[in-house]
Amino acid sequence: MQTRISGAAREVVIGDGQPTVLIGEGINPSGRKTLTAQLKAGSMELVRKLAMAQVQAGADVVDVNVGIAGGDQVALLPRAVLAVTETVDVPLCLDSDNPAALEAALKVYRGKPLVNSVSGRERSLQEVLPLVKEYGAAVIGLTMDDSGIPQCSEGRGAIARKIVERAELLGIPREDIVIDCAAMSVGTDVRSGLAAIEAIGRIKAELGVNMTLGTSNISFGLPDRNVLNTAFLAIAIAAGVTCPIVDIERVRPIVLAADLVLGRDNYAMRYIKAYRQRQKADVQ
Amino acid sequence: MQTRISGAAREVVIGDGQPTVLIGEGINPSGRKTLTAQLKAGSMELVRKLAMAQVQAGADVVDVNVGIAGGDQVALLPRAVLAVTETVDVPLCLDSDNPAALEAALKVYRGKPLVNSVSGRERSLQEVLPLVKEYGAAVIGLTMDDSGIPQCSEGRGAIARKIVERAELLGIPREDIVIDCAAMSVGTDVRSGLAAIEAIGRIKAELGVNMTLGTSNISFGLPDRNVLNTAFLAIAIAAGVTCPIVDIERVRPIVLAADLVLGRDNYAMRYIKAYRQRQKADVQ
Repeated sequence: MQTRISGAAREVVIGDGQPTVLIGEGINPSGRKTLTAQLKAGSMELVRKLAMAQVQAGADVVDVNVGIAGGDQVALLPRAVLAVTETVDVPLCLDSDNPAALEAALKVYRGKPLVNSVSGRERSLQEVLPLVKEYGAAVIGLTMDDSGIPQCSEGRGAIARKIVERAELLGIPREDIVIDCAAMSVGTDVRSGLAAIEAIGRIKAELGVNMTLGTSNISFGLPDRNVLNTAFLAIAIAAGVTCPIVDIERVRPIVLAADLVLGRDNYAMRYIKAYRQRQKADVQ
Repeated sequence: MQTRISGAAREVVIGDGQPTVLIGEGINPSGRKTLTAQLKAGSMELVRKLAMAQVQAGADVVDVNVGIAGGDQVALLPRAVLAVTETVDVPLCLDSDNPAALEAALKVYRGKPLVNSVSGRERSLQEVLPLVKEYGAAVIGLTMDDSGIPQCSEGRGAIARKIVERAELLGIPREDIVIDCAAMSVGTDVRSGLAAIEAIGRIKAELGVNMTLGTSNISFGLPDRNVLNTAFLAIAIAAGVTCPIVDIERVRPIVLAADLVLGRDNYAMRYIKAYRQRQKADVQ
């Protein structure tokens, strides 16, 4: 199944057996003081820089999140989206928990973005899916509902199915739904990694949809987080994740390696090109 | 399914859902000039050092290979095995393509070793399996026969089944067979990594046996080999490999990370302990 999203000038195809599409998580003020301060002051300078840096590091899609305490997302999100699209030509992931902010951003976006996100909560389904339909977007469906995130793969599979069914009822095709199985930290629950991997395998087998995943939660509260994120990401890609949301610079080498060992990189061309670019950057 | 092997004083259990058992590949003269020279001169000094270094780095089992051009393995292998067992107390993997050398080593070994290896070749089955039965060992079964290593997972599955059936006919229980799916380089054939992963999944589902894998071949001829070996190993462990043969120092962190995200490390105790040991080693 192929999900096609686009910026003003570039289309990205997400699909099985193809190179993994990397969504850059860098534009997100959570825990970032400078970005928070700039957004509060209404400045988009750092937003542009972060977008450029991620695309140069290999981001195929850039996630844009401007959620700050006391900030007006309805005003900020479309401004940030315009700033990013003036800077880079990759498709964007419009990331907000506020449907009015999503709509304001969808109004100014040129192309077909990924909306991040709808969940299995009734209110989310009712507010977000009609926007996705109206603006012809694709959408990330988070396997969470009013009871939270189910630990078992059956529970997450049921929410994914519900989101796909509700979307299809509105005329949103299944290929425009990208499911997020939302992994929790293995520091608090040792079963949470395996539960997410099992959910990914189950949903891939049952629904065939593309899947995203934020992989940094898995290591929350533990030391040497990068090695955990790396192992989890490689396993998640093999299990069915086709477009993870990641720290591009840190994880791109392991993703290119996973794609190569999974047969998605003919003649190792992407892998070798990225290696040469890193070498060149190290020399400079 | 649990495979139990032992040294004179220590038993190691290989099994699903348990921490991955690491077999150290370090005692192997292939491509190593100093070790080759020492073995030619009949010295076991470096063999002892390599055994100690690997166990200190976290090896659960040590592979012993003394195959040198013009060397007498029948004399060398039992000497090396005795030298290693005098130095460390972990179980050994007796690694030779010469059945007479394997028998000489089995005669002096105290405990239950892993014999590396039998293949699907008729001659190998006839020569190696009776030794495994006579000495009560466990054995690695390589999915290769007179036609080489099948590219497809069906072909490798058929050889694995043949090895298991032939072993069972002799009274060797299935749990004493550890299958090796033998991955080739993705530099020469882009499908070879995925083919190995698919074979691992198929054989795990069909036969339920433990599985080993040498992961360094996958990156032969390519740059930045460690990141490829790392990605492949994490994916292979998730697919069913329970006791890979590896460069211990390089890969132990990613294996501990894979075990943790796959729910095989309660309270992250092994992961955190190894992290603290590395920190301590860095300070010294």
